[in-house]
Formats: sequence, structure tokens, C-alpha cells
Amino acid sequence: MNCRVIGLDADDTLWHNETIFARVQERYRALLSQYHDAEAVDRTLLATERRNIEHYGYGVKGFTLSAIETAIELTKGRISAQEIQTLIDTGREMLAHPVELLDGVAETLPTLAQSHRLMLITKGDLVDQQRKLTKSGLAEYFTGVEIVSEKDPATYEDILRRQGTDPAEFLMVGNSLKSDVLPVLEVGANAAYVPYKVTWALEQSDEIPDAPDRFFRLASIRELPALVK
Amino acid sequence: MNCRVIGLDADDTLWHNETIFARVQERYRALLSQYHDAEAVDRTLLATERRNIEHYGYGVKGFTLSAIETAIELTKGRISAQEIQTLIDTGREMLAHPVELLDGVAETLPTLAQSHRLMLITKGDLVDQQRKLTKSGLAEYFTGVEIVSEKDPATYEDILRRQGTDPAEFLMVGNSLKSDVLPVLEVGANAAYVPYKVTWALEQSDEIPDAPDRFFRLASIRELPALVK
Repeated sequence: MNCRVIGLDADDTLWHNETIFARVQERYRALLSQYHDAEAVDRTLLATERRNIEHYGYGVKGFTLSAIETAIELTKGRISAQEIQTLIDTGREMLAHPVELLDGVAETLPTLAQSHRLMLITKGDLVDQQRKLTKSGLAEYFTGVEIVSEKDPATYEDILRRQGTDPAEFLMVGNSLKSDVLPVLEVGANAAYVPYKVTWALEQSDEIPDAPDRFFRLASIRELPALVK
Repeated sequence: MNCRVIGLDADDTLWHNETIFARVQERYRALLSQYHDAEAVDRTLLATERRNIEHYGYGVKGFTLSAIETAIELTKGRISAQEIQTLIDTGREMLAHPVELLDGVAETLPTLAQSHRLMLITKGDLVDQQRKLTKSGLAEYFTGVEIVSEKDPATYEDILRRQGTDPAEFLMVGNSLKSDVLPVLEVGANAAYVPYKVTWALEQSDEIPDAPDRFFRLASIRELPALVK
């Protein structure tokens, strides 16, 4: 592939994220278990998140607000202020959580950075994503960082235009078909899908990428240097 | 002044923001008035915001979380879940609030955009600031938008370097000495201070800018075209 610039997603592509949310959701279900079963808790929280995403965007702060709102709804207001405080504390713990790189990332990024311009392209809270990048020790390998509110075709077009990068020379790498693959293929660029073990419901997609020469499915980020050689 | 690029702050420089927070804080004091007087409420909320800013950054979502936490603290947990829900609802109202331009902005920006490159440089929630820019009707006048987590000298240096702009050719315009003036002067660029009628406590500064040839104090954004002519 004749690629000059590589865009990399952050959460669950470079470092673990969904597993942290999964552990938090486990505690959340336990908090509400005297009121509702796990399935109802998960379903209602997801509905709240979906409804709020337009206002809150992605990230821990919006998740925390949605979790508080859902808990009030599911307990018909019987949840105590102390229990709500534990949700706020949990959110703050998530924002201070250590960054754990995915297998292969620490070895692969320095190699890629020698031959390609690397850009971090991620959604989420501004402060939190910058913190994670700093803590990851990977910041030096990126020539650009784009923290965006939505990963749609217009976002990618805008980034490529501002960087003066031709779509044919751009490869996006990430764990979400919805955010890292489909919109990238739509603007004529290349995409490498590296699935993570869990995918958040709002990132799931039934659509199958239909661009055999521009779409690649990798088992690990370790396969990336061979792909872009 | 030989300026080619103008950076503009958003909240309380282009559109009203602090007045919205002030109205919300009024309701917040009323909610807690049976527990504490207004001064104690304001002081405790500010202390919570200051403590949380490292984790939450700037913006409505962090404010809402800090307001909930402060209410739990000030009522020793006696605040009801329904009252906490009103705080969440208020936060969401703020995120859907109409954008009201400051006097002179609608007339001045098109004029400036004819002779200069304009950049929006603002802190706050990513999604919220993008929404306000869209609703403001001003988006077409900006060639770049930077939503940043902190406005310090490093942030301005980074923006200028990425844009290939010499500090001497850059003028930042805003209502905060702390965020829009002092760090800009520190990196060798120019700054125009246009005070708003209210300044948030965390934006207040006692430092007096000491760069007479690069610092300008304007009564209104209407004075800007003459300054940069």
C-alpha cells in the first residue's frame, strides 16, 4: 500500500478502555441489583447514553452523568445521595486510571513512526484523552493529535484537507467498524480493522465493508508494519 | 500592527456565557438556601470546581458534576435524588441554550475575515463548543478552530507552530487576562483584551500585562478593525 500517513484510534486500539467500563458497569449493576436485574440495568443505561450523546458527546463525564440519571430513574428516586456520590467517585477514578497499552503497541509504534507520519484520531473528553496520551508514553511518535466529537466522513475529510493528505495515501487503524473503518472507506481512504475483545454497543455496526483493496482486517497491531511496507 | 492571523476566544468574547452560568448559580443557591447561605454555597462550589478541573477540564459537564458533588456535601447527603435530577436537567438545558452574540460581533467578524485569517481558540467541552459555533452562524468566518484543554503558553506555541504563524503576526482577542492575554504575550505575540461584564473566579488574574506595544485594551470588539488596520 502506498500510504504516507497513518491515523490511529486510541481507546481499545492503543490502550485498554472498554474493559475499564465493563468493570465499572459490573459495580453499577451490583449497586442497583436490589431494584432491577442486570439486563434491565444495562438496557436502561444504554438508552440514556444514546439519548444523551448528542448533548454530552463521548467520554467519562457524559457516562457518569448518564449513570446518575439512570440510577435515579431505575430506583424511582430512592437512590441515596451517598450512592450517587459513589458514582461520581467512580467516574473520577476512571479519569485517573492508569493507561495499559495493548499487546504489541509499545513495540510497533516506534517502528511505524520511522517510516510514516502518525496521527492520533480519537473521540472522547479532551482533557482525558490528552492525559491518556501523555501517560501512555506514546506522544512522541505522533505528529498530530485530533480529538473529535464524531468520527464521520466529514470529520475525516476535514482532517485530510487540513493536513494536505490525499485519501489514497491515508490509512486509518482502529477497533470500530462504525468509527474507524466505514467513514474512512467512504472518503476514499484505506482502513485497517483491529478488533478488540469487547465492542461498546454504540460502536457496533452490521454493515460489512465493501472495498476489498482498501479494507484490511488484522489480528493484532503487530501486523501493521508488514501491511504498510 | 502587522498582524496576519487573529485568534478569537469564544465564551464571553463572541457570545454570552458567564451570564448563563450566573443565572444557573442563582437557582443553585435557591435550591440549597435551606441548608446554607449564598456565600457558603458559592465558596464551596468554587472549591469543588477548582479541585476537579484537573480531571474534568472546563465546560458544562464538569460544572454539573461539581454542582452535584457540592450539593451532596453541603446537605450532608440529605439532598434528594429528584433535586439531583434537576441539576442534571439544568446542565442539559445549558447545553441546549441558544447562542446570543455579544454586541458588535455580527457586524465585525465579516469585516475582519476579509483582511485576516481568523481562528477560534477556546476551552470547554468539545461537543458544546462546536454546537455553539454552528448555532452562532459565525463558522464560515473561521479558517481554523482549536478547542483546547488549557490556554497556556505551550498551547499557543503549539498552535502557532502548526499554523506556521510567526508570533509577531498573531493577535489573540479575548475577555480573560489569564487565558487570552498573559500566555499570548509570554510567547511574543499580541493580545487584545475585551473585558466582559463578569469574569469567572477561576479566570481572574491580578497580574498586569507588561508589554505596552503588544497589549491593547478595547471597550468593544467593534474597535478591532481599526486596531489591526
